Formats: sequence, C-alpha cells, structure tokens
Amino acid sequence: MSAAAAWWQHAVAAPDAAAMQAARRRQAQLTKPAGSLGALETLAIRLAGLQGRACPRLDHVHISVFAADHGVAAENVSAFPQAVTAQMIDNFAAGGGAINVLARQLGASLEVIDLGTVAPSRGGDIVRREHIAPATANLAQQPAMSMVQLQRGLASGRNAVERATVAGAQLFIGGEMGIANTTAATALTCQLLNLAPAQLTGPGTGLDASGVAHKTRVIETALRLHGPACTTPLEALRRLGGFEIAALTGALIAAAQRRLPVLVDGYIVGVSALVATRLVERVGDWLIHSHRSAEPGHRSVLAALDARPLLDLDLRLGEGSGAAIAVPLLRLACALHGEMATFSDAQVATGNA
Amino acid sequence: MSAAAAWWQHAVAAPDAAAMQAARRRQAQLTKPAGSLGALETLAIRLAGLQGRACPRLDHVHISVFAADHGVAAENVSAFPQAVTAQMIDNFAAGGGAINVLARQLGASLEVIDLGTVAPSRGGDIVRREHIAPATANLAQQPAMSMVQLQRGLASGRNAVERATVAGAQLFIGGEMGIANTTAATALTCQLLNLAPAQLTGPGTGLDASGVAHKTRVIETALRLHGPACTTPLEALRRLGGFEIAALTGALIAAAQRRLPVLVDGYIVGVSALVATRLVERVGDWLIHSHRSAEPGHRSVLAALDARPLLDLDLRLGEGSGAAIAVPLLRLACALHGEMATFSDAQVATGNA
Repeated sequence: MSAAAAWWQHAVAAPDAAAMQAARRRQAQLTKPAGSLGALETLAIRLAGLQGRACPRLDHVHISVFAADHGVAAENVSAFPQAVTAQMIDNFAAGGGAINVLARQLGASLEVIDLGTVAPSRGGDIVRREHIAPATANLAQQPAMSMVQLQRGLASGRNAVERATVAGAQLFIGGEMGIANTTAATALTCQLLNLAPAQLTGPGTGLDASGVAHKTRVIETALRLHGPACTTPLEALRRLGGFEIAALTGALIAAAQRRLPVLVDGYIVGVSALVATRLVERVGDWLIHSHRSAEPGHRSVLAALDARPLLDLDLRLGEGSGAAIAVPLLRLACALHGEMATFSDAQVATGNA
Repeated sequence: MSAAAAWWQHAVAAPDAAAMQAARRRQAQLTKPAGSLGALETLAIRLAGLQGRACPRLDHVHISVFAADHGVAAENVSAFPQAVTAQMIDNFAAGGGAINVLARQLGASLEVIDLGTVAPSRGGDIVRREHIAPATANLAQQPAMSMVQLQRGLASGRNAVERATVAGAQLFIGGEMGIANTTAATALTCQLLNLAPAQLTGPGTGLDASGVAHKTRVIETALRLHGPACTTPLEALRRLGGFEIAALTGALIAAAQRRLPVLVDGYIVGVSALVATRLVERVGDWLIHSHRSAEPGHRSVLAALDARPLLDLDLRLGEGSGAAIAVPLLRLACALHGEMATFSDAQVATGNA
C-alpha cells in the first residue's frame, strides 16, 4: 500500500460557511420564537452547509446495505446461526426486511452489497454480488482480513457512494448485516478507544448473560493477539474489522470527499465512522448521527465522536434501519426551514428577546 | 354544573387486549431479533390495542390547534406582545405557520379553533371562530374563567374530536397558540403537583433571566390567591388555566371516550393531559407522548404522567408541532409491523435467544 497516494487519504472539504450563514439568517426570520424548533433548526443549518445552499432538500435518499460473514462466528458469539447472513440477503432481495419496508415508505433507493457469505444466497435485483471471500478469517486466531481484502472492502464502499452520487442522491445511508459483527465492532472499539471488553460487550442480536461473558472472553483473546500490532487505525480495521465494516469506512470517507451528507445508523456504522474520522480530517463534519443504539458499546463510540444523535429508541437491528427511521426528521426540518412564512411576510410582530 | 352527569366524567374503555396480544405474536414472527426495533415495537403493539386490530394504520391524522388570549399577559410575562395570538391565527389561515408546513408534509387534516383574541383576526378557511371571550381574566387577580366559560372550552375540544371521528381520523393531535399560556400552564402544574414556581417557571417564547424571575413572582401571586380554593382538578383548571387548555382537556377526554388515540404535544398539552387523567380514569391509556419540551415544567408533567416521550429535540414551539414531528415514527412503526416478512415466509432461521 502506498500510503500517501491511497484514495481514502484524499482531503475532505469543509462545509459551505456562506450557505450556513444564509440558513441562519433565514431561521431568524421564520414565524416562531428563536430556537423553538431546537435540533430541527440545527439540522436545517447543518444540511445547508453540507449541500451548499440556503434551503437544503432531501428528495433522493440512497441506502446501501453491506452484508458479509465473519470467521469469528465459529467462536459461538451470536444468538443466530451464521446461515442467517445469506438468508437475510435473500429476504432483502424479496423485499421482506425492515430496511425494505423503510426504503419503500421513504421512497429511498436501496441496494444490498453481498461481500461474502458462507451459505449460498440466491441474489436478486437489488443485490450486488461483490464477494471478497466467503467470510473474514477468525479474528480470535488471526487477522480478519489481508491487506488486499481490506482494500477491496474499502473500495466497495467508495463505489456504492459513487453510484449514489451519479444517481443524484442528496443523503447517503449505509447499513449492514453480518452474523457476529458486533463482536468485530466491539473488538475494534476497544482497540481504538483503549477500553476493556467487559465494559462494552453487549448481547448483539440476543445473547444471554453467559453468552455475553463468553463473547467478552473471545474479544479479550483477540485484543491480546492483535493489540500490539494495531499501530494505525487502518491496521486495527484490517485485524479486527469485517468486510462490511471496511466497506462502510470507505463509504463514509468517499461520501465526505464527494460532499454527500451521510446519516449514520447505529453501532456498526458508528465504529466505521470512528475509523473513518481517524483516517481523514473533517470526515466527521459530513456525518449526522441518527440514533443511540441499545448496544452498550455505541455510547462510547458516540462520546468519542462527540455526537448527540437525534433518536434514542432502543433500536439495535442494524441494516441502516435506525438511520432510515430518522429520515423524516431531516425532511421535516428542511420543509419547515424552506416553507414557513417570515415575520414580515405574515405581518407578525417579533419578540423582545 | 351537575357533577355526576357531566359528559367529561363518562367512562373511558380499556384498550383491546386481544388485538395487543395478536400484535405481540406478530412481532415475534418478524425477521429481526426479538425487541430489536425497541420503542417502535411497543408503539405498534399499543396502537393495535387502541385501534382494536392486530395491524394498526395511521393514514388519516387530524390536527386541531386551539388559540386563545390570556388576561395574565397584562402582567408582562411573555417575550411577545399579545397581538401575536391573533396575528398567528392569520398566519395559520394563510398557511405560513410551522404546523401548516407539517400538516402538508404529513397529509394531515388541520383546523384552527379561535377561542378568543384581544386583537382582531381575519379568519380563513381552516379557522373556526368559537369565541368564548376576548381573553381569559387575569389569573393573578381573579379566576381565569367562569364555570360557563370553562364548560364552553371543554365542549370546544369535545366538538373538535367529534369532527375528527366523523371524518375517519385514526390519530388526534391537539395543538395550541396563546401568548402567555406557559404562565397559565405553569401555575396549573404547580397547583396540581404541589411544586414551587421557582422550580418550574421557564422562558416560554424567550424571556431572559429577569423576565423568568418576574413571571415566577406572578405565578406565586396567583397560587396564593387561588390555591386554597382549588379543591378539585376542574376548579384548578377554571382558576389557573385558559380557554385552549380547557379545550385540550376536553379533547383528550373525548378522544379517549371515543377510542381515538391521541399523540400528545409538549408542555401545554401535557398539562391538559394531567388534568384530563385526574378527571377520568384510563384517559392516560389513550395518550402517546411525542416529545420532551425544552420548557422546564414539562419534565415534572411527564414524570407525573409516568410518560417516556419518543423525542427529545429541545422543541418548544407549541401549535402541536412536536406531535406532528413524531407522526412519521408512528407510521413507520405501523409499516414495519404490517409489512415485514415473517421467519417462516422468508425461510430465515430463528435465534436461540
């Protein structure tokens, strides 16, 4: 890898300060007490800066769900069998997953990128087969990915963003599906934030207390094995991540580079955001955090990113579902910002505050 | 007033337990880890119980905004002049208010009920003129309403719910507009919860610290004057409330009596919910709380109602806007509940949890 030239190290621009200023001026003129729409005002102003116009719009939302299997599933760290990754790809292909329902309700474009599953899947119109391997290697025993596999993962994310940009998307959502991926995400979070697995390990899709204790020990083993070699965020991602986590990292960086705002889902995407923001300056400016996951590690990730998410609804499904659920808040923020009357239009007196 | 026969004391039914049980069974079959959609699962199950069917729907949402002036505005307790109440009715009539934008985005029906303003308003298609008086009396000096005025206020709310029910609404939202109404709401909250004005009084539309201190003293004066006579929640509402607070109280009771679920907005509607739940048993079962307002008194109201609202976005606009902003969450909860594939449909393996 030639470090200086790698695409994921290319610079990210700052949001458009003039557009944000214009949006702030507009907010001050709308027929409501100053600040009374709270986080929705902040959102409209941020989106103005990201889209480079005083009145942002979110007509076209794009969702890419990255699916992949994890070698560490062999350690019995998930409540669901590994075959479910491929079965859920087929469920997405048939339109039956939560993210399918949400994409339909939102009128969002949806694609599923199959990065590798152990069990066969049937594929379908919305599924892109970009297999890197049937699964990552078992991170409790060896690095999850080779450098070539990591680069393919990152590129898969970048390519998804490229498709979204070409299609005119105004907001990018990345989602994920992969049995055992909270194990990889927790190992990576512990490594990057120097926290203990016992603090962060959670039930994932539904482990009981003894399952969580076992998962904690597996992550401790992985950290002992890889910790000393994780001298960069990229090497930590290669050793402890997964194909979909790499793809999401690449997607977030590529979106920021292309000035495409990202609505970040929960824990797994949050960990990818943590890696992305450590790889390239200003990536964080392009990320809006949608919700606080019920998975305990997400709190630490959000704190490290200095993020206050919009929703806190005990969601822990993944697939990009939490971000999709927050899309209407962003759209309503844009509509209020763009369509409310001003004090002078409506001949309403202003306050003395 | 003939206490036993008053319409607002008629019984409220319990939600449909069989429909809730059917909804719970359905949730357990959907292709996701159990509980992974968090509050959205709870919402779908609650709405099933309120609508009496396993798969609830929210195609028709109705919003009634009750507007009225307050005599206590003479005490200089608001950052905006009293004329703004009538001006905002005209703004609503012209489609320029936040609630107009939200109603359009949601495809919700919207009406504004003008219960009395000091300044003249022009009216308009969506405005119903149901003047009780130009304003309530100044509650710092005398009871805000006569008993007849209170009854007219309650009836105005009931009639709005009756119109919504006849039109086929599946969800009712009540909103409000009235300069100085956080003063009335705070006085009423302090009286009902036996809390000190210094704890609960907030900036409303935008008072500074000295304005809040003055508003606190006005509320203290009102409580000294009326407290001993407030022997029932209804008498507290009459002495310390407002026309729109009475109307919202009547609307919430009438909605519960008619089995129409209510999505409760912020502080003012929350105080009305507090009165309503103390007047009739089980009204609270029919209320879904949309958001936690930035106005400090709302925390105490929510705690007294044992409510955990869906959103916490520092909203403090009123007009029903916070409830409207939460509508997409309820609709997405219904869509996920009704449209996701089941494990057997999709041939996905279930977990061991």
